[in-house]
Amino acid sequence: MKKLRCKVCKGPIVIELRQHNVAFCAEHFISFCQNQVARTIKKFWMFGPEAKVLVAVSGGKDSLALWDILNELGYDVDGLVIGLGIGEYSSSSTQYTRDFAESRGLNLIEYDLASTHGFTVPDAAKATSRVPCSSCGMSKRHIFDSVAIDGDYDVVVTGHNLDDEAAVLFGNVARWQSEYLARQHPVLPAQNGFPRKCKPLIRLSEREMAAYCVLRNIDYIVEECPMAAGNKHLEYKDLLNQMEVDSPGAKHAFYFGFLDRASKLFADDFEKSLQTNAHGSEEPLSPCTSCGRPSSNAVCAFCKLVERAAPTSEPVSVEITPRPDMIDG
Amino acid sequence: MKKLRCKVCKGPIVIELRQHNVAFCAEHFISFCQNQVARTIKKFWMFGPEAKVLVAVSGGKDSLALWDILNELGYDVDGLVIGLGIGEYSSSSTQYTRDFAESRGLNLIEYDLASTHGFTVPDAAKATSRVPCSSCGMSKRHIFDSVAIDGDYDVVVTGHNLDDEAAVLFGNVARWQSEYLARQHPVLPAQNGFPRKCKPLIRLSEREMAAYCVLRNIDYIVEECPMAAGNKHLEYKDLLNQMEVDSPGAKHAFYFGFLDRASKLFADDFEKSLQTNAHGSEEPLSPCTSCGRPSSNAVCAFCKLVERAAPTSEPVSVEITPRPDMIDG
Repeated sequence: MKKLRCKVCKGPIVIELRQHNVAFCAEHFISFCQNQVARTIKKFWMFGPEAKVLVAVSGGKDSLALWDILNELGYDVDGLVIGLGIGEYSSSSTQYTRDFAESRGLNLIEYDLASTHGFTVPDAAKATSRVPCSSCGMSKRHIFDSVAIDGDYDVVVTGHNLDDEAAVLFGNVARWQSEYLARQHPVLPAQNGFPRKCKPLIRLSEREMAAYCVLRNIDYIVEECPMAAGNKHLEYKDLLNQMEVDSPGAKHAFYFGFLDRASKLFADDFEKSLQTNAHGSEEPLSPCTSCGRPSSNAVCAFCKLVERAAPTSEPVSVEITPRPDMIDG
Repeated sequence: MKKLRCKVCKGPIVIELRQHNVAFCAEHFISFCQNQVARTIKKFWMFGPEAKVLVAVSGGKDSLALWDILNELGYDVDGLVIGLGIGEYSSSSTQYTRDFAESRGLNLIEYDLASTHGFTVPDAAKATSRVPCSSCGMSKRHIFDSVAIDGDYDVVVTGHNLDDEAAVLFGNVARWQSEYLARQHPVLPAQNGFPRKCKPLIRLSEREMAAYCVLRNIDYIVEECPMAAGNKHLEYKDLLNQMEVDSPGAKHAFYFGFLDRASKLFADDFEKSLQTNAHGSEEPLSPCTSCGRPSSNAVCAFCKLVERAAPTSEPVSVEITPRPDMIDG
């Protein structure tokens, strides 16, 4: 077997990327990752060199790598971390984020769900009797949006990598959820009071991001969120990993094939359905009477969640007597 | 746990269908399968009660079950079996088909690739250096078409079940092959000299077809084709089976979701791309100079294969001496 050499300098390699049929030394793998992000930002017209960027950081490999890469590429980029109150997982996540920001001299905004709104993600899961990922995702989106708009950021970026996006696409395709397929795109333009949102890591896989962090001395939380165990998203990732083993590049072909040849069909069709429905447009938005953020109802979904999930009933809300089995556990 | 009872007669059950959340006794499971086929034929406008139907039979559970069901539903339906020359697998397949036809007093057309065209599927695989499934599929389509047109059949039906169609869709979606997605439909209308083709088993799974055969005393060849081992199609079936275990009904949701909400988008887009290409239409077809069947080239793909794969280059047929292991398999 031929010994692999770095594609760029022919030196000894640290990683082989079977899906691209190349291998790299540490230095050129790092450049490769940074170039992939630069190329994605350019190709999808994500944002310009002067943009004020807010990166949503979790303390995991993807978001910390993204923050590092954007900083290395010369962008003006601040971090936002949300304390979700998921026990030690959350406190540890926040600590990794703080340590990283400090090591790079970067500006980190910390936002704590419990001290700001009086509830944690486990509280929300209990209050809504739904999977925790549902209220967690909704809360995070609400906070990203608010902080970005209030802080005058041009764009919010998230660390969704190729594995994440391919798994979401897999889930949407499994039931052909047209509306989700119409909206699954690495760029969501700013509109109706929502900030622009982009996913610059879509060309990079989970494995590449882990390697990048190791090589750049980025310490990150390795554990998956304990509340996400067994969710469909992880099942779809497993299935995609099986496909990738048999055909390196399968995830890339699946996700970018969709963007190239299908996403516009679903987006156009969705647009057309809006034009022919009763309203002639999407549900009109107006400021939430509680928080002022755009909402299709009088009170937005996040403020409704605050009402239900916060143990103290300020400012709205009803008294909830928790059942004994819902306390501590 | 509550003991399951037949949904229709409340008697003891022989099968539970988790994806439909029902269970049946033998008699009512058989009616269920027949009704599913009748419903599919009606819903997709496949063919009318007076149609002269040709079913492509392999000796496997699906095609024999389909033939049995169409006969029970009162259709005028003949069978066509092709001797593909894949050793004992083929001779055994043909024998199961003959036995079934004889037991029901049905008319079976036998077509032997080796004695008619001088080559077998293994010969074709060697001659083309491609996976055998490729020349096998093409040869079968050519023969189905020729026999249907020459015999004045109104429609050719094939025993593709839900598992088959979901796996094909999975493969097409894995790389978003727009042209294949545009054409993946249970009905292909007759056009350009090709017969109408339909797949009436799309609402029934592999497991249901196996149970149907057992309950109707249909003996069928259980082995998969030995030349298909390791092909992608089987890999996709495995992945879909994993999804089905976790979410009963997943295959149905995937395939019928596509038909309901996506197939038209791809078909319309493909149609549009044809109108805007250089020709203003699909590749024009004219009779193959060798066999007279419609072709986009002077000589059709099947006749080219005959030229390459038949050991003697006579336009038709050679005498084949069966190997000892191919007799009475």
